[in-house]
Amino acid sequence: MTQTSRIWTAALVVVGDEILSGRTHDKNIAQVAAWLGVQGIRLREVRVVPDDMAAIIEAVNALRVRNDYLFTTGGIGPTHDDITVDAVAEALGVPVVIHPVAEQVLTDYYATRGGLNPARLRMARVPEGADLIPNRLSGAPGIKAGNVFLMAGVPGITAQMLDGLTGTLEGGLPLLSATVGCWVAESEVADLLRETEKAHEGCQIGSYPFFREGKVGANFVIRSTDQALLDACAAALDEGLVALNRFPVPGGI
Amino acid sequence: MTQTSRIWTAALVVVGDEILSGRTHDKNIAQVAAWLGVQGIRLREVRVVPDDMAAIIEAVNALRVRNDYLFTTGGIGPTHDDITVDAVAEALGVPVVIHPVAEQVLTDYYATRGGLNPARLRMARVPEGADLIPNRLSGAPGIKAGNVFLMAGVPGITAQMLDGLTGTLEGGLPLLSATVGCWVAESEVADLLRETEKAHEGCQIGSYPFFREGKVGANFVIRSTDQALLDACAAALDEGLVALNRFPVPGGI
Repeated sequence: MTQTSRIWTAALVVVGDEILSGRTHDKNIAQVAAWLGVQGIRLREVRVVPDDMAAIIEAVNALRVRNDYLFTTGGIGPTHDDITVDAVAEALGVPVVIHPVAEQVLTDYYATRGGLNPARLRMARVPEGADLIPNRLSGAPGIKAGNVFLMAGVPGITAQMLDGLTGTLEGGLPLLSATVGCWVAESEVADLLRETEKAHEGCQIGSYPFFREGKVGANFVIRSTDQALLDACAAALDEGLVALNRFPVPGGI
Repeated sequence: MTQTSRIWTAALVVVGDEILSGRTHDKNIAQVAAWLGVQGIRLREVRVVPDDMAAIIEAVNALRVRNDYLFTTGGIGPTHDDITVDAVAEALGVPVVIHPVAEQVLTDYYATRGGLNPARLRMARVPEGADLIPNRLSGAPGIKAGNVFLMAGVPGITAQMLDGLTGTLEGGLPLLSATVGCWVAESEVADLLRETEKAHEGCQIGSYPFFREGKVGANFVIRSTDQALLDACAAALDEGLVALNRFPVPGGI
C-alpha cells in the first residue's frame, strides 16, 4: 500500500438526550461528515448516546482505538448536564484540569458579559494534556485530547471549530463522487448497477430511491478516490441506462 | 419495582453510506425517536454504520441484546448495496428465506408496474422465522425478526411502517417533558438548574442554549414519567428564574 492509498478514518459520538428524545434534529452528523470528506478522512461510524458517563465512555473507548480520529459533539457547556469532558478524561485515564489559556480566553470573553463565574469556568476544564480548538463565536473553546476532538453541540459553534481545524489533520485521498439520476424504479436497473460496479474495481455505486411529483426515481452515487475510474464508471452507467431506454440525468435529480 | 415503573428501551441502527458521506441528512433518527417516545419506549442509543456486513452485524448484535427492541433503517431495497436482511440474519444465526406472503404482496404490487423480477423478489427475503411489517406506500414490507425491526431508508416509507406498528409494542410510562425558555446565558443560571434538578428527584433538566436575533437564550427541558413531579419542577424553575430577575417563557422559545 503506498502512502497515498492509506485510508484515514474518523468516528463521531453525538452526546445528547435531546437527539434521542426526538426533540432536536441533529445537524452535526451531516456537517462533520461533509467536512471530513474534504479533509480526505472517511467517517466510518456515528454513535448517538445519552448524557450519561458510562455510555459516553464506552462509545469513546470503542471508537477512538479503531479510528485515526474521534469527534464528539455536545456536552461541553457550563451546565450540570455537560459531562463530556469528564467522560473523555475518564476514558483516556487522565484527570480533568483547568486549561490556563482557556481560562484566560473565558475571562476576556466574559469581561463585558457579567464576568467569569464558576459555571463559566467549567468550560475551561479539559482532560490533562489537551490542546484547545479556537471558537470565535462564543468564547468557550473546543478541545483536542489525544486523537479525540470535543466540539460543541450547537451546530453553528461546531462549524466555527471545524473551520479552525481545516487543513490541520492528516488525511488521505478524498473520496470523490459522481451522481447519475434517473426517473426509474431502482428495481428495474438493479442488474445494471451490480454489473457496472463489478466491472469497475475501485468504485462503489449506491442507489438512493425517492418518490417525487408522483413518480419513482433514484440517484445513483458512484464513489472512488480516482477521478478517471469515477468518470469511466459514470460513463458506463450512463450508457447502460440509455441501452435500457432510460434517460440518465448527470449530476442527479 | 412495580410493573408500571419498568423502563422499556430501544436502539436504532441507521445503515447508510449516504449518511456517513454527508450527502444525505438523516431524518429517521428524529422520527423513530419521537415515535418511540409515544409508545413509552426510550431510545437509548443510535449507531450509523456503512453498507458493510461486518459493521451492521456488530452493531445489531451489540444493541439487540441490551435493549428490548432494536430498529434498523436502510438497506432493505432491491439493489446490490441493500444488505441489511443478510446482515441481520447472520447476526441472528438464521438463514435468509423468501417469505411467501411478501412474495405475494410484491407480485400483486408489481402486477401493473412491469412485473416481479429477481431484483424485486430480493425484497421478499427475510431472516427465517420473521414476520412482516406492512408498507402501504410502496409494496415491499418491513420485517420483524425477533426483537429486531427492519425499516426502510426512505423516511416516508419508514413513517408508514411505524404507523403500522403503533400500539403493538409493549412499553412503559411515556417520558413526559415540559420546556421553560429564557433569554439568558445558560452559564448565568447553571446553579439554579443543578439545584432545581437535585431538589426534584425523578426529574432531569436539560439545558439547550441558542443564539437568535443576536441574543443568547436557552430552553430548559424537564423530563419525568410523573406529571405532578414535572409540574412541580417546572414551577420551581419558573420561580427561580423570576427570583434572578429573568423572565421564564413557558413552553420554550
